[in-house]
Amino acid sequence: MLNRHYQGQICSVARTLEVVGDRWTLLVIRDALRGTRRFDDFQAGLGVARNVLTDRLTRLCEHGLLEKQLYQTRPARHEYVPTRKGLDLWPTIMSLIMWGDRHLAPDGPPLLTRHRGCGGALTPALTCDRCGASLGPADVELLPGPGAGHAQAEDPPA
Amino acid sequence: MLNRHYQGQICSVARTLEVVGDRWTLLVIRDALRGTRRFDDFQAGLGVARNVLTDRLTRLCEHGLLEKQLYQTRPARHEYVPTRKGLDLWPTIMSLIMWGDRHLAPDGPPLLTRHRGCGGALTPALTCDRCGASLGPADVELLPGPGAGHAQAEDPPA
Repeated sequence: MLNRHYQGQICSVARTLEVVGDRWTLLVIRDALRGTRRFDDFQAGLGVARNVLTDRLTRLCEHGLLEKQLYQTRPARHEYVPTRKGLDLWPTIMSLIMWGDRHLAPDGPPLLTRHRGCGGALTPALTCDRCGASLGPADVELLPGPGAGHAQAEDPPA
Repeated sequence: MLNRHYQGQICSVARTLEVVGDRWTLLVIRDALRGTRRFDDFQAGLGVARNVLTDRLTRLCEHGLLEKQLYQTRPARHEYVPTRKGLDLWPTIMSLIMWGDRHLAPDGPPLLTRHRGCGGALTPALTCDRCGASLGPADVELLPGPGAGHAQAEDPPA
């Protein structure tokens, strides 16, 4: 086990939350991944104040999760298109949905996820890239990686 | 596709974010899933103000993600133990970690996740519970579920 201080300071969860750890930001990304592209459509779908939406869309563009593209010139109109970095949040968003479906939906899931053509459901389980096993907390060990950097030397594993 | 208003109002992402959509809350859960149990250990690991930590731990207990258990009587001391509901956030937390590893770690991941005994890595991919295929946004269709309730009749799919 790495010690607490180290875990707290250098962690991809903490970094990720710096970028997307805000309710509106995640809801904007959710809608972008479902096909919403235009300011007014995000606004209508979320019922969010326009200044808040402007702020979140700007941040998401600055962080490279969305790309602002001109789709009309007179007057100039833009749409917000998810980048690879934005699309890569799809498993995280689905994972949040599945947790909510399991624990916060007493009447059952509001939406069902179905594998197109197969009819199976998405599973929340994560798997091993080598053997394909479904993994849980007890199956995974955390080791210092290349990005541990200086903190590793200054503040070594307990 | 379901229409925007409907998506915005009834969605397990939105509900989930009501419970865990706060940076400190997710970091507290992250540490709890790594074995942190005691107030002072959460506090030391996160460097968070004590009143903020008290608030987040209380909320997590109220929502049933952590359970406050007495481990010493004189003086009374409690620890915070993840419930099934809390443990079920593990794939979400790992998914956040893996996204950060991929997009926010220019020096490589601070921590490596390894399948104990196998050596494989966790993959961010989600799979189909029937055929086992790795699924992406284009492979999944969203259908109204049992929890769609009245909103479905009042505000039907576009």
